[in-house]
Amino acid sequence: MEREEAVRAENGEVKVEKKSLKDGSICGFDSLHCLLSASLQPSVFQEVSRVLLGLNCGRALEALTLPGPAVALSSEHDFDLQAFCFSAAKESLREPRIVRVGLIQNSIALPTSAPFLDQKRAIFQKVKLIIDAAGASGVNILCLQEAWTMPFGFCTREKSWCEFAEPIDGESTQFIQDLARKYNMVIVSPILERDVKHGETVWNTAVIIGNHGNIIGKHRKNHIPRVGDFNESTYYMEGNTGHPVFETAFGKIAINICYGRHHPLNWLAFGLNGAEIVFNPSATVGELSEPMWPIEARNAAITNNYFVGSINRVGTEIFANPFTSGDGKPQHSDFGHFYGSSHFSAPDASCTPSLSRYRDGLMISDMDLNLCRQVKDKWGLRMTARYDMYADLLGRYVKHDFEPQVIVDPLLRKPL
Amino acid sequence: MEREEAVRAENGEVKVEKKSLKDGSICGFDSLHCLLSASLQPSVFQEVSRVLLGLNCGRALEALTLPGPAVALSSEHDFDLQAFCFSAAKESLREPRIVRVGLIQNSIALPTSAPFLDQKRAIFQKVKLIIDAAGASGVNILCLQEAWTMPFGFCTREKSWCEFAEPIDGESTQFIQDLARKYNMVIVSPILERDVKHGETVWNTAVIIGNHGNIIGKHRKNHIPRVGDFNESTYYMEGNTGHPVFETAFGKIAINICYGRHHPLNWLAFGLNGAEIVFNPSATVGELSEPMWPIEARNAAITNNYFVGSINRVGTEIFANPFTSGDGKPQHSDFGHFYGSSHFSAPDASCTPSLSRYRDGLMISDMDLNLCRQVKDKWGLRMTARYDMYADLLGRYVKHDFEPQVIVDPLLRKPL
Repeated sequence: MEREEAVRAENGEVKVEKKSLKDGSICGFDSLHCLLSASLQPSVFQEVSRVLLGLNCGRALEALTLPGPAVALSSEHDFDLQAFCFSAAKESLREPRIVRVGLIQNSIALPTSAPFLDQKRAIFQKVKLIIDAAGASGVNILCLQEAWTMPFGFCTREKSWCEFAEPIDGESTQFIQDLARKYNMVIVSPILERDVKHGETVWNTAVIIGNHGNIIGKHRKNHIPRVGDFNESTYYMEGNTGHPVFETAFGKIAINICYGRHHPLNWLAFGLNGAEIVFNPSATVGELSEPMWPIEARNAAITNNYFVGSINRVGTEIFANPFTSGDGKPQHSDFGHFYGSSHFSAPDASCTPSLSRYRDGLMISDMDLNLCRQVKDKWGLRMTARYDMYADLLGRYVKHDFEPQVIVDPLLRKPL
Repeated sequence: MEREEAVRAENGEVKVEKKSLKDGSICGFDSLHCLLSASLQPSVFQEVSRVLLGLNCGRALEALTLPGPAVALSSEHDFDLQAFCFSAAKESLREPRIVRVGLIQNSIALPTSAPFLDQKRAIFQKVKLIIDAAGASGVNILCLQEAWTMPFGFCTREKSWCEFAEPIDGESTQFIQDLARKYNMVIVSPILERDVKHGETVWNTAVIIGNHGNIIGKHRKNHIPRVGDFNESTYYMEGNTGHPVFETAFGKIAINICYGRHHPLNWLAFGLNGAEIVFNPSATVGELSEPMWPIEARNAAITNNYFVGSINRVGTEIFANPFTSGDGKPQHSDFGHFYGSSHFSAPDASCTPSLSRYRDGLMISDMDLNLCRQVKDKWGLRMTARYDMYADLLGRYVKHDFEPQVIVDPLLRKPL
C-alpha cells in the first residue's frame, strides 16, 4: 500500500512522493472500514457494521462486480475502486428506478509550484483515467470534487490562484462535455468560476453537464467558510443561484458544495425542491473535520429522504510561500491532510464504506431512487415537519428586534 | 453481566427476567464502545475513537472519578454509571462555566399487566436510587427519559395507558420536586401530561423543575410520529408551546422530545432561542433507529453549537394483548428492544461513549458551557447561515402554489 504525499525538499522545491505505509501503521490507516474489518472477528465486525453503517437485519451492503476494463484501470493507475448496491422494496405501481452513480476523489498531479497550465492539464490527465473507469462501469451520474482542476490554494491568501477560474463554458467544461457525451453520462464538475459578464466576479461553482454533453446549468456555493486556513471568503462570495434541483435523464440531483454541509437549512432546501441525490463535493482536512465527516452527510440523507454522495480530495498540498494560520503557531507550507473518505449515504440510514484516506478513488453505487419516497412514506418527516411554525420563526429571527423565547426561573434573581 | 428482559410465560403472564449474557455474545453486546475497546488493540482503538468519538489530537475524553456513595449505589442496584468531562479553552474575559449534567435511562420495574399504581410506584422507587446517585455526585442538571413513569404502551393502541397521564403539578412532579430541592438540582421530568383545564387533553410533555423544587415551566413535544408501532398520534397531538429555552440556575436548557430529533428545524429553533444544552429524552427500538441514534444528536450539537444529552429507555416491554404492526407479520406482544445507549454530544463534534444497551444507567458529564460560544466563533455557522434566504423559502413553501426550483435538462424530452 502506498500513499502520495507532497513534500518540500531542502532546496525549497515542492514535489509529490509516493510513500509506503508500514503494516500496522495506524496513523496511515486507509479507511475506518478497512481498519475495523482487519482488526475485528467477523461476527464482531458484522455487529459493528450494523450500527455504524446502518446495515440492519445483519445484511451486508451488496458489493457490485465491475467490468474488467474498469478494474484494470484502477490497478494500473493505482486508484481505489469500490462499488456497492443500495436496495429498495419492489413497488406495485412503479418500476424500479435504478441509477448507477459515481464519485471521484483525487490528489493534485504536480507540485503547486509548477506552471499553472501544466498543473491543470496533469490533473485532467489523471482524472480522465478515472472517468474512463466510470464510463467502462456504466455510471449514469458522476460527480467530481470541489475545485477539482486546481490545488486548494486558498490557505495562502495569494490571489494568483484566481487564475484557475474559468467561465462556465471554459476549458474544463469542454473537457468534461466530451467525456459526458462519450459515456452518455451526467457529470457534475465543481470548478472555480470566473463570471466575465459580471465584472470578472469569482465564484465557487458546480457546472451540471447533461448526458449529451450539454450544459444544463450551474449552482454556486451558498455558504462560505471563514475557518482556520479556509480563507475562502477572500476569494469568492455567497452564491446567488438559490437551491436548484437539476432534472437530468437519470434523476433529480442537487449540489451542496463543501461548507454548506454544516448548514441543515441548505440540505433542507435542496430536499424541498425535490432532490433525489445531493452531492457534497468538498475539500477538508483531518484535524478540522474528520469526526464530523461521517455524521453530517448521513444526517442529511436521513432527515431529507434522499441519497447523498460525499466527496473529499486526498493528499497533502504544499505551497511555495509559507503562511500562518491565525493560531499563534509557526508558519508552515501545507494545508493539512485532505483525507478523502468519499462515500454514499442513503435515506434509510445505511451508508457505504469510504474510499481511501490516501489514494485517488472512484466510488460507485447503484441506487433505486424509489427508496426516497418509500422512506418518506415510512417516516412521514415531511408531513410532521410543521414548516409553518419555522417559516414564522425565521421570519421573526431575521428582524432586528427578534426576542428569543426564554423562560427565566423566577427564583433566579430573588433572595431565598 | 446481566440484562433484563420482559418475557411472556406459557400461562400468558408477563414478567421481567434477568438474563445472563454469555461472554462473547455479540447480539448482547453492552455498548459499541465496550465492544470495540475489548476487541481492538489499544493503538487501533485510539485511532477508531478519534474518528468515531471525535476525540482529535489523540486525547481521550477525561473520565471523572465519582464519590464513593454514588459508585456504591450503582454496584448495589446494578445500574451502569459513567462520567466524563468535556473541556474548553480558558478565556481571558469570562470565567469557565462548568456544570455537571446527568442523564438517566431505565427499564420498567414491574410487568405491564401489574396494577398501574404499583407499576408507577415501582418505577419511582428504582429511579429514586439513580437520582440519589446523581445527587451524591453533585449533578446540577438532570434529565429523565421520555414518559419515564410508565411503560411505552402506545404500540397497543389501547387507551387505558392514558390513565398514566398527570397534570403538570401531579404526583410524579411532586416526587421530583422533593428530590430537586434535596439535591439543589434542576430536573427535567418528561411525562404523559393531562391538561385538565383544556378538556382533559393529553400531551407528551417535559416538566422543568428548578433547583429549589419550583416548577419553571413545561415544553410539549412538537413532532409526533406515525411510524411502525409508534402510534403516538393516537394518544396526543403536536405541542403548542413553541421552542422555549429555560434559563435555570445552571445554564440555558431546552428539550427536544424523541421524534423531534429527526427534524433539524426543531433542533435549530432551540438553538436560535439560545439553548446551551438540549436534552433529547426518547423511547426508540433497535430495528427502527439504532444506526441513526449516534448520528442525529451529534449533528445537532455540531450545527447548533450546543451540548446534547440523548436518553433512550432500556429493555423489552411485553403487553398482555398481542397486536399487529402494520407490516403483514403475525401479531406479537412486544415493542422491540429499547436499546438505551444514552450519551452526550458536544458542539466541538466530540461525544461520550454510550450507556449500556441493556441496563439502567446514569451518564454524567462536566461541561464548560463557554465551549458553545467558542465553537460559534471558530466555525461562524450562525453568521454564514443566510437565514433570510430560508425564511423566504419556507414562507413560499407553506403556500399552496409553491413551485420547487427545478431546472430541467432541455434535451430530456426532445428527439435526438
